[in-house]
Amino acid sequence: MKPAHKTVPATLAWREGELYLLDQTRLPLEIVIERQDSAEQVWHSIQQLKVRGAPAIGVAAAYGLCVAMKPHRNQALTEFRAQLKHQAHYLESSRPTAVNLAWALRRMLAVAAHENAADSAMLYARLVAEAQKIHTEDTAICTGIAQHGVALIKSGMGVLTHCNAGALATSGLGTATAPMYLAHQRGTAFRVYADETRPLLQGARLTAWELDSAGIDVTLITDNMAASVMARGLVDLVIVGTDRVTANGDVVNKIGTLGVAVLAKHFGIPFYVACPSSTIDLATPTGAQVEIEERAPEEVTGFGGIRTASIGMRVGNPAFDVTPHELVTGLITEHGVLRAPLSAALQKMMQADSP
Amino acid sequence: MKPAHKTVPATLAWREGELYLLDQTRLPLEIVIERQDSAEQVWHSIQQLKVRGAPAIGVAAAYGLCVAMKPHRNQALTEFRAQLKHQAHYLESSRPTAVNLAWALRRMLAVAAHENAADSAMLYARLVAEAQKIHTEDTAICTGIAQHGVALIKSGMGVLTHCNAGALATSGLGTATAPMYLAHQRGTAFRVYADETRPLLQGARLTAWELDSAGIDVTLITDNMAASVMARGLVDLVIVGTDRVTANGDVVNKIGTLGVAVLAKHFGIPFYVACPSSTIDLATPTGAQVEIEERAPEEVTGFGGIRTASIGMRVGNPAFDVTPHELVTGLITEHGVLRAPLSAALQKMMQADSP
Repeated sequence: MKPAHKTVPATLAWREGELYLLDQTRLPLEIVIERQDSAEQVWHSIQQLKVRGAPAIGVAAAYGLCVAMKPHRNQALTEFRAQLKHQAHYLESSRPTAVNLAWALRRMLAVAAHENAADSAMLYARLVAEAQKIHTEDTAICTGIAQHGVALIKSGMGVLTHCNAGALATSGLGTATAPMYLAHQRGTAFRVYADETRPLLQGARLTAWELDSAGIDVTLITDNMAASVMARGLVDLVIVGTDRVTANGDVVNKIGTLGVAVLAKHFGIPFYVACPSSTIDLATPTGAQVEIEERAPEEVTGFGGIRTASIGMRVGNPAFDVTPHELVTGLITEHGVLRAPLSAALQKMMQADSP
Repeated sequence: MKPAHKTVPATLAWREGELYLLDQTRLPLEIVIERQDSAEQVWHSIQQLKVRGAPAIGVAAAYGLCVAMKPHRNQALTEFRAQLKHQAHYLESSRPTAVNLAWALRRMLAVAAHENAADSAMLYARLVAEAQKIHTEDTAICTGIAQHGVALIKSGMGVLTHCNAGALATSGLGTATAPMYLAHQRGTAFRVYADETRPLLQGARLTAWELDSAGIDVTLITDNMAASVMARGLVDLVIVGTDRVTANGDVVNKIGTLGVAVLAKHFGIPFYVACPSSTIDLATPTGAQVEIEERAPEEVTGFGGIRTASIGMRVGNPAFDVTPHELVTGLITEHGVLRAPLSAALQKMMQADSP
């Protein structure tokens, strides 16, 4: 299968009853799209990070459950329902800490529990329809962020981003990248600077690749070049993603985000955060309450098996940092762009959003 | 030969008429000290960056010329003098753009030209003495920076540095590292954070290694972690090196220095630059007049030989950036610490320094 060039890369696709995943572990050097033919294959694809990014994992798991149940759709309903629970439990074990994985599988099980299907084939069809709904909803959130953020990107601008809050992490246009893809589709000419994002280099491996594949003018830089690029007047806008936004508007995101935010402030550049409402955590007052995961030292003392520092070297490797809300110009959500005071804006939006 | 542990690593040594170089290309995974037995070996050592850093290259070249001339010290004086020119010319070709290399070799030739030696052995001894003088002077500059900068480092402090302006780049205590080594020798307990310094990782490979070897408490971080470490209150002082300081006090140094300076200002942390007077360039008014070398894209699209970005990806790879003098708290020179207004302080010091 040839990759679709000059379009947003498809993280996953459901076509003629089959699930296809882009193997992100082979990017950017090889573009391999794998049909998923069994529950075991889906399990390994999720476990090995062939598909990654919270939204994309949720969608892949929902379709993955369909892949797992397809061989059982001619069996008796009681047998099918028993298998369904078993397979959902199995798939959930592929990445036990991925919130979206468990969430999507629970949703699929709940639909099946409430569905009064005549036979297994009908129940299977209902499950496929629900997976497609989860997929559509995820895509729609990205599109919402795109539509609200696109006005920020004007012709001739330079836009800097960090890590991969891209199409590859979702089943749509991504989050931070969503306004970029839409602006590009609308013919706006702009440049993107992608931080490589040490230690795991998601910017180099994923963001630079996906934007380049879509025909967007992207320049890859090391993280420590952002200041230089800004000082030369080449950056007019920063858009990054987020893992969690606390009640006061503090942004928890990939390590290095705080540095970019401080630089943006120094050089007078607007700093926006693409923020699907699912990442907003009103239960946590500020970023100070968020525990920051410290990852393995080997990620810092080398890359991809290449060692660059002595064995036993003391290393810092926080996975995330906290950007205080004062440094955030705005949050681009699927419902609109929130601006200071973020705490009030977040509360208002989440109240309107809840049923 | 065993490396000297818990001391400043010796970049080079002249012992019993022989030159020894620490092979920096094998660091930090292997510590290999090579005796230099021929002009060809010295040529390759310089060319392959086994010895690097402007001051260290100058000293290595001066001793290297002695290595080259040793086989000729029993020949007739005219033959010796002819060989001397030939060998100096040859060694200079190992790194044609290294200013200190040419400078040291010219100085050796000038000494020989003015020396009225009775025979080749005497002239050879005079050359060795001059190389040792160049070595001693370089060491003294480092010691001067150490003595003027040491008061900045107080017990309990965290000190952040970028790239390698270390002992490995000189024949002494280094420049940015010099105050650290002296503070450590005096028993001051402090921590160092070493930026790994992409793309070439001099911080990870060299600075972290040399400070750790000397028994200094050093933590290796990726460049994009500096903001996080500062935000947590762990950094009280920044000391970096410089390649050139212009007349107004702007600092040209390894890419990423500007970002560290902006962060230091944001977090209220003093930002010092270790600056041997040889790097001060009063002929260039400001950093804006300095042409910044753009290096090969492969340094950014890969990591230690591992490719991390697509072939043909557009890349930014400026080797240096310019930190404006307003962000510089002070310049630590071998003659004293200069503070704002830097332009006047630089002029005054250089007038006093010149003969």
